[in-house]
Amino acid sequence: MPYGYWGKMLRINLTTGNIKEETFEESFMRKYFGGKGFVSYYLLKEVDAETDPLGPENKLIFATGVMTGVPVSGMCRYAVGGKSPLTGGYGQSEAGGWWGPELKMAGYDGIIIEGKAEKPVYIYIKNEEVQIKDATHLWGKNTDEAQRIIREENGDKRIRVAQIGPAGERQINYACIVNELKHANGRTGMGAVMGSKNLKAIAVRGTKKLEFKDKQKITEIAKWFSGYLMENPLTYGLYNWGTAGGVMGLSKGGILPTRNFKEGSFEGAEKIWGKTMAETILKKREGCYACAIRCKRVVEVKNDKYTVDPEFGGPEYETVAAFGSLCGIDDLEMISKANELCNKYTLDTISTGMVIAFAMECFEEGILTEEDTGGLKLNFGNAEAALKLVEMIAKKEGIGEILALGSQRAAEKIGKGAEKFALTVKNQELPMHEPRGKVGVGIGYAVSDTGADHMQAGHDSLFTQEGEVLDSIKPLGILKPIDPFDLTEKKVREFMYLQFLWSFYNMAGICDFSPVPRGSLPLDKLVEVMRAATGWNVSLWEMLKAGERGLNMSRLFNLRCGIDSKDDRLPERLYQPLEGGSLKGVKIDKDDFNKAIKKYYAMMGWDEETGIPRKEKLEELDIKF
Amino acid sequence: MPYGYWGKMLRINLTTGNIKEETFEESFMRKYFGGKGFVSYYLLKEVDAETDPLGPENKLIFATGVMTGVPVSGMCRYAVGGKSPLTGGYGQSEAGGWWGPELKMAGYDGIIIEGKAEKPVYIYIKNEEVQIKDATHLWGKNTDEAQRIIREENGDKRIRVAQIGPAGERQINYACIVNELKHANGRTGMGAVMGSKNLKAIAVRGTKKLEFKDKQKITEIAKWFSGYLMENPLTYGLYNWGTAGGVMGLSKGGILPTRNFKEGSFEGAEKIWGKTMAETILKKREGCYACAIRCKRVVEVKNDKYTVDPEFGGPEYETVAAFGSLCGIDDLEMISKANELCNKYTLDTISTGMVIAFAMECFEEGILTEEDTGGLKLNFGNAEAALKLVEMIAKKEGIGEILALGSQRAAEKIGKGAEKFALTVKNQELPMHEPRGKVGVGIGYAVSDTGADHMQAGHDSLFTQEGEVLDSIKPLGILKPIDPFDLTEKKVREFMYLQFLWSFYNMAGICDFSPVPRGSLPLDKLVEVMRAATGWNVSLWEMLKAGERGLNMSRLFNLRCGIDSKDDRLPERLYQPLEGGSLKGVKIDKDDFNKAIKKYYAMMGWDEETGIPRKEKLEELDIKF
Repeated sequence: MPYGYWGKMLRINLTTGNIKEETFEESFMRKYFGGKGFVSYYLLKEVDAETDPLGPENKLIFATGVMTGVPVSGMCRYAVGGKSPLTGGYGQSEAGGWWGPELKMAGYDGIIIEGKAEKPVYIYIKNEEVQIKDATHLWGKNTDEAQRIIREENGDKRIRVAQIGPAGERQINYACIVNELKHANGRTGMGAVMGSKNLKAIAVRGTKKLEFKDKQKITEIAKWFSGYLMENPLTYGLYNWGTAGGVMGLSKGGILPTRNFKEGSFEGAEKIWGKTMAETILKKREGCYACAIRCKRVVEVKNDKYTVDPEFGGPEYETVAAFGSLCGIDDLEMISKANELCNKYTLDTISTGMVIAFAMECFEEGILTEEDTGGLKLNFGNAEAALKLVEMIAKKEGIGEILALGSQRAAEKIGKGAEKFALTVKNQELPMHEPRGKVGVGIGYAVSDTGADHMQAGHDSLFTQEGEVLDSIKPLGILKPIDPFDLTEKKVREFMYLQFLWSFYNMAGICDFSPVPRGSLPLDKLVEVMRAATGWNVSLWEMLKAGERGLNMSRLFNLRCGIDSKDDRLPERLYQPLEGGSLKGVKIDKDDFNKAIKKYYAMMGWDEETGIPRKEKLEELDIKF
Repeated sequence: MPYGYWGKMLRINLTTGNIKEETFEESFMRKYFGGKGFVSYYLLKEVDAETDPLGPENKLIFATGVMTGVPVSGMCRYAVGGKSPLTGGYGQSEAGGWWGPELKMAGYDGIIIEGKAEKPVYIYIKNEEVQIKDATHLWGKNTDEAQRIIREENGDKRIRVAQIGPAGERQINYACIVNELKHANGRTGMGAVMGSKNLKAIAVRGTKKLEFKDKQKITEIAKWFSGYLMENPLTYGLYNWGTAGGVMGLSKGGILPTRNFKEGSFEGAEKIWGKTMAETILKKREGCYACAIRCKRVVEVKNDKYTVDPEFGGPEYETVAAFGSLCGIDDLEMISKANELCNKYTLDTISTGMVIAFAMECFEEGILTEEDTGGLKLNFGNAEAALKLVEMIAKKEGIGEILALGSQRAAEKIGKGAEKFALTVKNQELPMHEPRGKVGVGIGYAVSDTGADHMQAGHDSLFTQEGEVLDSIKPLGILKPIDPFDLTEKKVREFMYLQFLWSFYNMAGICDFSPVPRGSLPLDKLVEVMRAATGWNVSLWEMLKAGERGLNMSRLFNLRCGIDSKDDRLPERLYQPLEGGSLKGVKIDKDDFNKAIKKYYAMMGWDEETGIPRKEKLEELDIKF
């Protein structure tokens, strides 16, 4: 094994049942690094403009990164990509957990799924033994049951299962893929693509040893990091209160999405934030593979109305906000139940919460009535109605059938002005970050290859309380603090550099939480870990340029699919003043914003008007599609 | 003192006699780093299109870099810049030795000279004591005598003197500045600018302690490096045979400039290469400040015709080739004498050798006759005539007066088709690297901010004998070897990235020899030294982006001076086949080359046709001129 990867992709054709291994050389890995790099490479190479995202010609690519499986906090991620049924273009979503490292330990860097099985199947990989197995008996089952059966029938409790539940089987546009019942490749509907291929699950068991160049160095850094992360406010906060620890701060700051982004502060924030979770329903803190941060929550609820099974983990910040403040709901137990349901059925919690908030606003505005909802009183704050709606969406029952299309398409069906409450970019629902209070996030939403996405960087507040720029972003060459509301070239540049970095994290299989600006893994240590793992004399320059390469490739794929500059826009609501919260009255200036987007194009080396990458930019990045 | 620099520039107005200190903050240093960064900053800020390079409005900027004075091999450089009398645009040249570190130890990062003294003066800096002193008695003196007197009259043998000799006083367009009699800021005529200001010398004595963040780390790396450099073929070769150790290899490879670039192999190469020098006239190997490589030669000659004083060091590769193969001369003692004379009079050895070779070809072609030359038989190979010509140029005697203009202007005066033998870019004579055998060098010549220059990167042969790309350039993201004759986007990209790197070396005060691709200081160690010295968490990304910033700023200054895309071209001879040597018949395809230049513009984020940096590129680099 070369250090950090195998140079091996599995290609499995579900139509023919053909399974083969494809190898690649070192320079391929060092150029694309994995994740978005692999996904965009194979999509550009093998998927064309006419391909139906839910047809057999689409590819579904599972891609680890070169760092996936390195025993250091955060090195556990893998991406799943394909043409998206939600956006119609570049689809991809990453997940943590253990499945990625497990695939690596089975001897593969990734899997390309093609074709469509005649009847439901799952793939079982035990090192080099790769089988396509019948899944007729699993079809229709929730994730917990399916996982149990797969483990049982293969006689191994340690099998890691990435799978779809009923929402994926029904090809709901925002169905996700869930591994170990709680880690989700949430966005862009990759679960639907999996469903369209009649593929229930990929179950993996790997026992190969991963080789790294300098194990001692890795151990050293991992140890240093484990010690240090408790001293770093962000990582300690993530450990202590989970990702939802930020809810209160965001609400106070006026940037907690509330009631479908009408407002930015939520009166019930204290009831749903991470500290409250830790003090009430939290059963355990869990981490992904090799991670000392343990930001993952395990919650347990047993109340009069329902129970929440700890097997499904607990809600992340995105989920807490999407089912909480966004829907005006301050019931943490209900939120946890919604999280469980989404993990059971494999629905993306962000899009699901957003679709429900959309429906709630339509209901409050009289666009949807009890007649439409089957008697549900869909007012903001109605926790039970929201839960019911999750079920209805997963089963495409009643109003759920329309909502299962995603809010944009649902709004088009509903008509009556519903569209203005569907908050999407490229048809994908906004995640739980308010661009009106941090415009860099808005740029990220607008230009993201996957539609509105919080994994594109731009999360601002990159300066200290004293107003100094954070030390951690200085290696990017950003030496002066930039105002969160700034939309000038400074913001565009900062966003762009950070976007390169985050894109690279995605490619290499690195979690955003440790090397994020306020995180505890400084960029120099990150470079050290990269070097120790791979044996390459890799530099931050090389890494950022690779990140830029990934972004250009996914852009090219979107352009091929007809997604272009016209789609790099925000929903109109964000140009309207916030109606409540501590930033009440604040809006994004549309002209300034559109200018910033053009500036971003030009700064990226793209045509300023069309957003098409210039030939020489592609040549610089050695992209030949 | 902040680590690695003082944040202090001296501003000395020679017209008024005003001396003042200007301070700058940390983010200024981390943005511009020194050298080219400072020079271009002050030129853009203070020198306009109409400024006469030899008038009092021109500025002469002495700029160390943030690494100048770090006790590690190669960290000794400083740049001198101003509007160039040779090119009419961005002028700048760097030098090694001890003067740069000495200025730092006196408490300054650089000096801005403005105005013009009424009569000859020199500046004496002893820590914070800065004086403008009379130099009437020094004017007209050669460098050795002037240095002796300055040291004597200030009672300190350890004073470091950067100065001009008679050639600088006479404002010869390619006069240089020499420190310690043997280290030259050779190119773009900075000696003439100094002469135009009636400034004979800047004598410096500094006794302040430089502070570095992590001294132990620096000592560690310096020690590691001192041990390792003897194992590295390039640095060992530099130590053993000096920079002229490459002469034989270049001649065999057909890329040793011979007889005014007509040919690429020289029959007398063995008589003049570094090994022969080491075995005959070499008296001592010397290094610059803190350098363990010791590539500098000290030679001594006593023969019937002349002596060469070891005080003036010995000829570098550029000098050996310029007075040797380029003039068809195989007499190492004569070459050493020419070197001595150039250091005495402060003539740039490259331009001087090129001007002589130009005159020789004109003579052989009958364009110049004995009548023109005052009886000198200027045939290729006539060593004595060449030596005589050096004297005549320095004294502007006879044909020397015309040749002192530089070959381009001399050719215009001479007429009769002489122009085709004047090999310059932007009026500056080509250095001793043959672009027809390594086209990256050609791109460097064409687009260089200073006219033809070998300090712009592009020296090719970046792969191993096995055809693998050198490990040392992989951190730039260059993973596949590129043919020396290639002119496609691959070469342009490689050149551009290397140019960023070399530009950064210039800015930070780092010698190109240790971290050069085949050198022994890998980029990761370089980043480590940077971090240890400054305490900044600096990255290769930040460094390369700073290098890019420097190149864009010098470009802007050239554009202001009317130097633009029309001047980014090679002399016609390089599009003609080599007439002799192992690459006989090889030429550069003009169309391909011009396409590559346009590609370079576009890849730089400049307008493809005009070569003007796009607004957004400047915004990205935070350049506001």
